[in-house]
Amino acid sequence: MVNDTMFARGAESSVIREIFSYGLERKAQIGADKVFDYSLGNPSVPAPAAVRASIERSLQLPSDQLHGYTPAPGLPEVRTAVAESLNRRFGTSYGMGDVFMTVGAAASVSMTIHALTNPGEEVIVIAPYFPEYAVWIEKAGATCVEVLADQGTFQVDAQAVAAAITPRTAAVIIDSPNNPTGAVYTRETLDALAAVLSAANADRDEPIYLISDEPYREIVYGVEVPWVPSIYENTVVCYSYSKSLSLPGERVGWVLVPNTCPNASRVMPAIAGAARTLGFVCAPALFQRVVADCVDEPSDVAAYARNREVLTQALSSYGYTYVEPDGAFYLWVKALEDDAEAFCERAKRYELLPVPSNSFGVPGWFRLGYCIDYDVIVNSLPAWKQLADDYRRER
Amino acid sequence: MVNDTMFARGAESSVIREIFSYGLERKAQIGADKVFDYSLGNPSVPAPAAVRASIERSLQLPSDQLHGYTPAPGLPEVRTAVAESLNRRFGTSYGMGDVFMTVGAAASVSMTIHALTNPGEEVIVIAPYFPEYAVWIEKAGATCVEVLADQGTFQVDAQAVAAAITPRTAAVIIDSPNNPTGAVYTRETLDALAAVLSAANADRDEPIYLISDEPYREIVYGVEVPWVPSIYENTVVCYSYSKSLSLPGERVGWVLVPNTCPNASRVMPAIAGAARTLGFVCAPALFQRVVADCVDEPSDVAAYARNREVLTQALSSYGYTYVEPDGAFYLWVKALEDDAEAFCERAKRYELLPVPSNSFGVPGWFRLGYCIDYDVIVNSLPAWKQLADDYRRER
Repeated sequence: MVNDTMFARGAESSVIREIFSYGLERKAQIGADKVFDYSLGNPSVPAPAAVRASIERSLQLPSDQLHGYTPAPGLPEVRTAVAESLNRRFGTSYGMGDVFMTVGAAASVSMTIHALTNPGEEVIVIAPYFPEYAVWIEKAGATCVEVLADQGTFQVDAQAVAAAITPRTAAVIIDSPNNPTGAVYTRETLDALAAVLSAANADRDEPIYLISDEPYREIVYGVEVPWVPSIYENTVVCYSYSKSLSLPGERVGWVLVPNTCPNASRVMPAIAGAARTLGFVCAPALFQRVVADCVDEPSDVAAYARNREVLTQALSSYGYTYVEPDGAFYLWVKALEDDAEAFCERAKRYELLPVPSNSFGVPGWFRLGYCIDYDVIVNSLPAWKQLADDYRRER
Repeated sequence: MVNDTMFARGAESSVIREIFSYGLERKAQIGADKVFDYSLGNPSVPAPAAVRASIERSLQLPSDQLHGYTPAPGLPEVRTAVAESLNRRFGTSYGMGDVFMTVGAAASVSMTIHALTNPGEEVIVIAPYFPEYAVWIEKAGATCVEVLADQGTFQVDAQAVAAAITPRTAAVIIDSPNNPTGAVYTRETLDALAAVLSAANADRDEPIYLISDEPYREIVYGVEVPWVPSIYENTVVCYSYSKSLSLPGERVGWVLVPNTCPNASRVMPAIAGAARTLGFVCAPALFQRVVADCVDEPSDVAAYARNREVLTQALSSYGYTYVEPDGAFYLWVKALEDDAEAFCERAKRYELLPVPSNSFGVPGWFRLGYCIDYDVIVNSLPAWKQLADDYRRER
């Protein structure tokens, strides 16, 4: 029989995708330059030139070497390149055995949730949060437990996490630099979270795992992004090259089970088992090689910084309140009425397409993806002003 | 807590992968040309030249168009190209809405099982069968029910399927051309299977689905591979370009929910929901475009036919019994003792690496993947003869 849960997950478009589709239609109606689509996290910054050079170099390889199956955890030289890059940056001693190449961040996180939870257990997420976490947690048979971030700074509220921990808590997922708020968790935040988890572990046979989802690690505006496994040893890191190398459609990333994780010898096989069980065979072979060649390519953060600057200055002058984003390419803005969905519907009148905060598990805000063209942002500013004026007139 | 099932699935290497790893070690010890590794289904035939031309053409596109997220079901022009190719070949009237691009055949089948089964239901597989079916069925919470193929022809035994159907039967998986036997199911076989399923459906609200896993459709030696949805309407087809275009590492394929399937409007969203739920975001973007460009490229069957010829003639003359393979690039051979695992261990003495049938759910046979270099096959023949002589001397 057709599975009702799968049907529901497929039939309910994600709100983000729905807004994106509306934007495409609207652009067809009135012209692409007249619609200001802030819905998606599809980077406008091109992939570095090294990506193309790497692909062209790989095309010289014999076909069966180039396009053949790789080992399930990835090509040894690619896993080694990833480990060594991390070692250079974080003073760690990882080896290829700590790295499992994946079909992008969604695969990384979905596999890790399956590896680290059992049916009936609980996984804590920090609201607002990336909505697919809840879908993957449900599929693993676990329960998604939402804990509100500090509503001023959008840092993790460690005491709120402490209050949510039960004997069934298997893992906590964090995502810094954060989607949707742009917050980057400070060392103090992570120290406090680690203290809470370590205290809880004293009563348990197996520790609570910290799943650190870090696709935006490289997109950061002058602040430190602490290396989480050096703060809490039971951390598994999930990564993707979707944002740092602007390759979201190519689906390549990794899971790191650090050799400093006390249970690494049980966690890594469980990651491999989850990959196999869910139907992932290996990460795309050609783009594994791209990763090896481009592992230390810098992301073009300057382009996002320029977008952030023009957008925040303008919104601020129009009276919008937002969280100062330290990383990622999202701006988290207070809606001008309590009902964020109503606000976003009204924004459509001005051809503005933000995403209401409800899809991230909290009311009253909206998310702007400013990874779009600079000109689109600049051209949208009068519309943002008119929208704010509109609300002001009503008050 | 680390999930025990995931740990077990990761810790138990697949037998096939274990033999492959042994082969790599052994090659390092005694020289690559002295080890005759028949374990994997990694095509030795290169990808058609059109693949490289397509990649080079795509590299001219703007980066965000080329490497950006595609819609979850795939790029519209790619889905259309796939549908139209099928229409030309099978006289069907499919459209892009019937095609969902996937991260290879494993994703196709895993997603389809999740979409079409509920926990507690049963999925029938035809033994010998591709061992990962059982892993994916277990993950969906369903039970894998093994039904023996006809042990002479290795066609589906429709009466045995009829006997195995219960009110909990959700689906039957078939795989023709077959891995591991090389059998191609005839029209008569499929008619008989369709009759059995249709008869069972008379008592049910929702039909039994037929999942037709067809990665080897193009690798066939002069026989017809009937189009299954034209024989049984409740068929979902799973495909991959791993074998036909020799791209197993790149992970690209599709699921077809034909518009002639009465429940297509419920099945397709469930496929999409399964993709989302398991952590697949989209099929790799660059290779989606390769598919559109190469959808009608012929496979180089001649190379496999030559391998098949030299191997079957020699084994036959040494006294081995095998199933005459009509398709795929596997030979299914009777072990020279009852215990196939013992036979395969003994074969190692001659540096021969077959896969014992136990991993495919039946005793007494072994599988040879003859998608390897012709010279390896020719050089291995004296070893196959010595192995047979060995057994003869003991009798």
